[in-house]
Amino acid sequence: MGLATADEYRGSLRDGRTLWYQGRRIPDILAEPDLRVAVDHAALDYAVGHDPRYRDLAVAKDPASGAEFSAFYAIPRCSDDLLCRSRLIETVTGLGGTMVTLVKEIGSDALFGLLRVLEGEQRERVFAFYEHCRDGDLSVAVAQTDVKGDRSLPPHAQADPDLYVHVVEERSDGIVVRGAKCHTSIAANAHEIVVLPTRAMGADDADYAVAFAVPVDTPGLSLYVSAYGAREHDAFEFPISSKHKMLETLTVFDDVFVPWERVFLCREPELAGPVALAFVEFHRFTAVSYKLPLLDALVGTASLITEMNGVSTAGHIREKLTQLVVYAETVRALTEMAAIRAEVGQHGIASPDPLTTNLAKYTFATRYHAALELVQDCAGGLLVTGPGGADWANPEVRTVLEKFYAAKAPAEDRLRLLNTISDLTTRDLGGYHAVLAVHAEGSIEAEKMQIFRAYEPGRAVAYARQLAGLDDHI
Amino acid sequence: MGLATADEYRGSLRDGRTLWYQGRRIPDILAEPDLRVAVDHAALDYAVGHDPRYRDLAVAKDPASGAEFSAFYAIPRCSDDLLCRSRLIETVTGLGGTMVTLVKEIGSDALFGLLRVLEGEQRERVFAFYEHCRDGDLSVAVAQTDVKGDRSLPPHAQADPDLYVHVVEERSDGIVVRGAKCHTSIAANAHEIVVLPTRAMGADDADYAVAFAVPVDTPGLSLYVSAYGAREHDAFEFPISSKHKMLETLTVFDDVFVPWERVFLCREPELAGPVALAFVEFHRFTAVSYKLPLLDALVGTASLITEMNGVSTAGHIREKLTQLVVYAETVRALTEMAAIRAEVGQHGIASPDPLTTNLAKYTFATRYHAALELVQDCAGGLLVTGPGGADWANPEVRTVLEKFYAAKAPAEDRLRLLNTISDLTTRDLGGYHAVLAVHAEGSIEAEKMQIFRAYEPGRAVAYARQLAGLDDHI
Amino acid sequence: MGLATADEYRGSLRDGRTLWYQGRRIPDILAEPDLRVAVDHAALDYAVGHDPRYRDLAVAKDPASGAEFSAFYAIPRCSDDLLCRSRLIETVTGLGGTMVTLVKEIGSDALFGLLRVLEGEQRERVFAFYEHCRDGDLSVAVAQTDVKGDRSLPPHAQADPDLYVHVVEERSDGIVVRGAKCHTSIAANAHEIVVLPTRAMGADDADYAVAFAVPVDTPGLSLYVSAYGAREHDAFEFPISSKHKMLETLTVFDDVFVPWERVFLCREPELAGPVALAFVEFHRFTAVSYKLPLLDALVGTASLITEMNGVSTAGHIREKLTQLVVYAETVRALTEMAAIRAEVGQHGIASPDPLTTNLAKYTFATRYHAALELVQDCAGGLLVTGPGGADWANPEVRTVLEKFYAAKAPAEDRLRLLNTISDLTTRDLGGYHAVLAVHAEGSIEAEKMQIFRAYEPGRAVAYARQLAGLDDHI
Amino acid sequence: MGLATADEYRGSLRDGRTLWYQGRRIPDILAEPDLRVAVDHAALDYAVGHDPRYRDLAVAKDPASGAEFSAFYAIPRCSDDLLCRSRLIETVTGLGGTMVTLVKEIGSDALFGLLRVLEGEQRERVFAFYEHCRDGDLSVAVAQTDVKGDRSLPPHAQADPDLYVHVVEERSDGIVVRGAKCHTSIAANAHEIVVLPTRAMGADDADYAVAFAVPVDTPGLSLYVSAYGAREHDAFEFPISSKHKMLETLTVFDDVFVPWERVFLCREPELAGPVALAFVEFHRFTAVSYKLPLLDALVGTASLITEMNGVSTAGHIREKLTQLVVYAETVRALTEMAAIRAEVGQHGIASPDPLTTNLAKYTFATRYHAALELVQDCAGGLLVTGPGGADWANPEVRTVLEKFYAAKAPAEDRLRLLNTISDLTTRDLGGYHAVLAVHAEGSIEAEKMQIFRAYEPGRAVAYARQLAGLDDHI
Repeated sequence: MGLATADEYRGSLRDGRTLWYQGRRIPDILAEPDLRVAVDHAALDYAVGHDPRYRDLAVAKDPASGAEFSAFYAIPRCSDDLLCRSRLIETVTGLGGTMVTLVKEIGSDALFGLLRVLEGEQRERVFAFYEHCRDGDLSVAVAQTDVKGDRSLPPHAQADPDLYVHVVEERSDGIVVRGAKCHTSIAANAHEIVVLPTRAMGADDADYAVAFAVPVDTPGLSLYVSAYGAREHDAFEFPISSKHKMLETLTVFDDVFVPWERVFLCREPELAGPVALAFVEFHRFTAVSYKLPLLDALVGTASLITEMNGVSTAGHIREKLTQLVVYAETVRALTEMAAIRAEVGQHGIASPDPLTTNLAKYTFATRYHAALELVQDCAGGLLVTGPGGADWANPEVRTVLEKFYAAKAPAEDRLRLLNTISDLTTRDLGGYHAVLAVHAEGSIEAEKMQIFRAYEPGRAVAYARQLAGLDDHI
Repeated sequence: MGLATADEYRGSLRDGRTLWYQGRRIPDILAEPDLRVAVDHAALDYAVGHDPRYRDLAVAKDPASGAEFSAFYAIPRCSDDLLCRSRLIETVTGLGGTMVTLVKEIGSDALFGLLRVLEGEQRERVFAFYEHCRDGDLSVAVAQTDVKGDRSLPPHAQADPDLYVHVVEERSDGIVVRGAKCHTSIAANAHEIVVLPTRAMGADDADYAVAFAVPVDTPGLSLYVSAYGAREHDAFEFPISSKHKMLETLTVFDDVFVPWERVFLCREPELAGPVALAFVEFHRFTAVSYKLPLLDALVGTASLITEMNGVSTAGHIREKLTQLVVYAETVRALTEMAAIRAEVGQHGIASPDPLTTNLAKYTFATRYHAALELVQDCAGGLLVTGPGGADWANPEVRTVLEKFYAAKAPAEDRLRLLNTISDLTTRDLGGYHAVLAVHAEGSIEAEKMQIFRAYEPGRAVAYARQLAGLDDHI
Repeated sequence: MGLATADEYRGSLRDGRTLWYQGRRIPDILAEPDLRVAVDHAALDYAVGHDPRYRDLAVAKDPASGAEFSAFYAIPRCSDDLLCRSRLIETVTGLGGTMVTLVKEIGSDALFGLLRVLEGEQRERVFAFYEHCRDGDLSVAVAQTDVKGDRSLPPHAQADPDLYVHVVEERSDGIVVRGAKCHTSIAANAHEIVVLPTRAMGADDADYAVAFAVPVDTPGLSLYVSAYGAREHDAFEFPISSKHKMLETLTVFDDVFVPWERVFLCREPELAGPVALAFVEFHRFTAVSYKLPLLDALVGTASLITEMNGVSTAGHIREKLTQLVVYAETVRALTEMAAIRAEVGQHGIASPDPLTTNLAKYTFATRYHAALELVQDCAGGLLVTGPGGADWANPEVRTVLEKFYAAKAPAEDRLRLLNTISDLTTRDLGGYHAVLAVHAEGSIEAEKMQIFRAYEPGRAVAYARQLAGLDDHI
Repeated sequence: MGLATADEYRGSLRDGRTLWYQGRRIPDILAEPDLRVAVDHAALDYAVGHDPRYRDLAVAKDPASGAEFSAFYAIPRCSDDLLCRSRLIETVTGLGGTMVTLVKEIGSDALFGLLRVLEGEQRERVFAFYEHCRDGDLSVAVAQTDVKGDRSLPPHAQADPDLYVHVVEERSDGIVVRGAKCHTSIAANAHEIVVLPTRAMGADDADYAVAFAVPVDTPGLSLYVSAYGAREHDAFEFPISSKHKMLETLTVFDDVFVPWERVFLCREPELAGPVALAFVEFHRFTAVSYKLPLLDALVGTASLITEMNGVSTAGHIREKLTQLVVYAETVRALTEMAAIRAEVGQHGIASPDPLTTNLAKYTFATRYHAALELVQDCAGGLLVTGPGGADWANPEVRTVLEKFYAAKAPAEDRLRLLNTISDLTTRDLGGYHAVLAVHAEGSIEAEKMQIFRAYEPGRAVAYARQLAGLDDHI
């Protein structure tokens, strides 16, 4: 079918999907203003393929057929491929006002992971589905995190067996699954959902070791879109979130049928962990790539507001800006290095170096809140005491604001920038970014665990033994 | 007049004050829903005086006349008085859902500071005004922070002379002032505004060295209430901010006349710094006192949600809860110690120890964002992906939510608690608390400067000299 | 016998004790230069009792008999007693050049703990021993930390049963013990050793649940003094460690007999934990008290060297000095507060508040290395590239040094101060202080565990429930 | 002359150089034990050229003449050259027990910097001197840091004009210089000293803007070797510092004559800053390269000791080891990236990316002390309470130590490893490493300044403007 346009993407979402929002069934996602913002935002993943400024980065060509397809679906074969993928993700997120678009990113992460870790017929099914998505230029969500119930118990020991998605029936033509996933990003405006297990599993959890893909309008599948961030967003007050939004859903599988050709894993608990991890390794690299515009936004807004406030030469401001640069550029360098250190593994697929990827993600996650403090410190209290869009719209009030909020820059520039910082750091979007920093694509604990596992201690321990002369004295 | 009731307080706000909100003139503060929430919140300062549970703490008695008055206006004479004041502020803020009420707190801070630092006729005017506020049980705002323009320039060198409030005319009966203050908390729902200089000033800034008090409905005074946080607040989604709010204003003085008996400082730049500081020393102690419920809320919600999620015994969760306890209890101990180390100064007024007060405030301010990270880490991603009030209100949706969001606690308890944490840390209120942590009652830099100044290096330096034998070898 | 003098103390150490140092049996501790430095240092605990400047603080009087005794042995009955004890410890440590003397401090900590937690005949034995120490003005070491072997195993499961001190025989007149303790401070120059269990124990570890006291010259008891820090200490290069030292021993019990009247605990594993903890609670308060001079030394030397170097007004230096002040004064305030919050417990003995004591200790321990970085940053590289005592002693070299190391202060003052900082932070003493910060009186993990346990979460959790409306909606 | 051997290097140091150590003139550096250790250590830079394991890395070949020379002197032309240089420095430092050898590293850093920044005749002189060093396989020190006197004053304003090295006379055949440099590493055992200005200078400081090279045995040049770390080092107690040492000198120029062909800069203050910086940019890259073995040593010893102690599976130990890995591997990744991002500049010389180099150095410097805390926490108190070499040498004592210090590993292995950690972190070498972390190759403040300067804010600020719509609304 070739590269879809943004409008084709929008139109294709009008199907029979079961969406709930704000307590209401939503018959048409495009007609619901909040959801429409998210659709328009996601459409960037399509628009870049038709924009001459980004085509080189955004469009890949099949060497055999010459067919063009979205570069998001280009399987990475070397470091340079990963660097290009990273740059593409960074670019589109930049256009998305620090918000990742994700509709092609996350699905391809999952597919690359599955293609890398599975073998035989399972891999063939994944590959066929991969071609379906690539050739149809589809949007693909990934539902991984189960609702989990009591986290001190494994899936099979929960009071309610449905707290992790599980197989309830195997039929000749497919399987039937039940349960719910949460924090499912962009499912409401995707075409397909890939479902993956959320963790390593034991033999008792075999029913829960299941991976598959279904179209979003599959019967029995219901999406409950989160109300978080729902409100009217005046464009003056909310320069970013009035235009950019990502939808999160509670994704309920109420005896959903999945045909065998879409089943990638069924009751093989020993593969649950590897499948989960293979996705995560790609997805954390996507994560650190899409965090780069957010980091630039923190550095850039902090730098600019200190000039507008007339404090940019103060020693302590210099110190704070330097700390922000250290933070942002360390994450950037580690992200780039994760691609440079890529290793080409099974089936010739290159994946980013896990140690370096997790160092990048961990660095991002554990210093994000400190960076918010620095940005807010640079910006000043007006972040939460300033005027709103209706004030600015009233000429009588605006005259007062223009007089009294002028600084080294005109009041309008300063207020617009302050609102941008407020949107980014103190309001719903700010909280969303902050919680995502800590939890998305794996928690801080998960990243530490991966760093510990991915680190090869041989060199350092051998050196310690040598320094201590432990091998000499024997 | 004795102790006013909450209703009397509400009614008294219907005067001719010039309020603007959302681009509209507001004729009646009680009729505007958002503002009404703030008034009802502030009314707690009145309600406690009539509540048997708090009367002992909230009501003082004049030893001479036997007249009762609000304990907020009791001039502290010793450490115990400061401890009681701290406990009163903590108690009312606790009732206020972590939001300080402030309508009697901040005014009394300013008056205590002025009474401590001024002398002669100036002090007599302040004392008369103090009696007026105390006996009338009035709400008093403090407008200190000027809008400031280009912060690299002093007041007199600004492009627009009105960017700091200044005296434009001295008349036989009083003075005329012009300019604007920002971040003026609770002015919109106070009876009086005390205006103080924002910084130390030189001779060129004499016109800007001015302190006075005026009723809020004084002609020429206009209050532009900030739009920050304005929205409908469903009680399920916003358990705190649906009930508690503080108003911030841009406070414009357009040739406002102030009679001499209300002028406390006029064109005496050498007193601008001392007056500013005297207020701040009391006000930072108020600040650390009113932060205690917020700290308890962070520790308590984090602790409770980890139990509900079933992760409370995990080692890393223990570590995070311990870090929160260290933070909260260090601030608490330092706050208490600031009162214990009080010194009784001029005019027999006890003020909290500046070094210890600033240590408490600095500790609070510089670890707040790190604490948010810990709380969000403990709570999980549902903070920003969960359902809203309208979802919960629909029985069909609610059934789904009850099934899938149950954990070690029922879904309802867990979601209510998660919404509380979200309200506190990820949404407008969360951003408000975070920015206030960094900027309110003086920035982090201001606190460091005060710590450096208040610290008496004699003991440590003498000890260094002794260790090095510097006095021996001479 | 009354208050012994420093000389009496020195003389009393010439007994039959079995000391090893540097691979040699030491017949006379006073004749071995390194050990003599430690004895002279410890003698400060005696000297203060006869020094008019310190007598008020250092000498207590029995209200009944009027007999004087060392204030270290005054059982604390209230907050003020603990504040006085803290001040005494701080004062003597100050005289000791940042090195605690400990010969009366640690023993009294152990005795107060035992007196608080034991009952009946056990307590009577402790009390009799307490009177013996107090009336004889004795030095008393505490051997608590066992050598422990494989730390993943409990005492009884070790490959060698002697890796924790244990009872090997019960006789009619007493018990026989075997094993070894490590990190035993000041045992080499004490009169008595109190032995305590190092941890909570289970029923299988009953033999290891033993507490007793023996004189240092008891047969079968051997002390192996650590070689750490052994070297010649030129007084110019090592202004502190040339005069002050503490001895640490491996303390070996080779079938040592202990008469019943000196046995405080024997095969009662359920009391092992409480006894260990009761000591620690007093001892951590001693610890934070004796850290105060070290903290003052860091602040004072950093402050003074920046003046001598001519950098004291630089912004980043101000920042670093402020951070040091924050650190030192937070520990000081928490230490003082631990005494103020004392609770009078069993047998009328006041003990410092465990939460606050552990907050103080934890704050000290976890920011110590960061403080070293600040001090070294302020001082400059000369800390490790400067001249030595022999250089200074040669007039020809000294002339060169005087010319080129002069700054805002004469070279001599600057070099002496730099050597003091080097001694404190970069050489053996510096390493000793740093490791003690992390490990002495319990590790950082132990302090965190105590903070978590001592913290009463009721108030915070109730407040969280209230904010979330959890009790309303039921 | 080709590649010199270690013995040739040793022999070549017996010249007429004026060395002082411990207050004595040293006629023969090889005959003074402490200094001999440093010479033997430095000789590693020669030994690697003859060791088959390292020849590929350590030896370069002139493409024209086919002559071999030390790879330290290979001018980097691309990223790979810098990566090889980094690996060479890391390798030799590894052999040097975490101590850099430096005798070829630092001199080549200076020469590369000068060759990059100078032009015309100045550059020709440098190049001739470079060929002299390369072809003679010489050791070259760099004296940059002046003694500086009062740091608040520039060179010309010091009370004593000699506190910065300066030109006192220009003659037809050369110049005469006077003054002193401090912290001059390895000058005592080098053949040549390159002298560079220490900072940017103004017109008044013209006499101080001087750069040149002289042989170490030049008349008028005296080296005062620091006494820091001087002591007998038992090999059991000091596994590293008994074998490895670096000498630091006060380097005094008492009217030293320098012929014009060795004068690289004379009274050109505008070049003082660029010359100083050009050296530093190479030297900081050397620094982060030679820190890598030290970082491995911290990770490796911490990891190994936790296994020996039987605590390696405890959660908090895992956490600490992970933090060490994050630290070490972040520095490693940034170091590598600094080479990858090299830009080929003037004269075809590749230099490491300044931003990334400084990020690496800053990260190393600002987390080093925290890493020491972690390592010491993992190791335990025995670091400063353990036995010494004489104890171990006495069979009677050794038997006791073997019994009681056994853990999950035999006592000997454990004690040797503990002594290694102690040597590295708590004793003179530990202090040396710690102070070097903060001060060597530029202070933390210098690194922050370079990060701020090297960072190109354009991208981030443009993005901030875009987010705020600042260019739209005009």
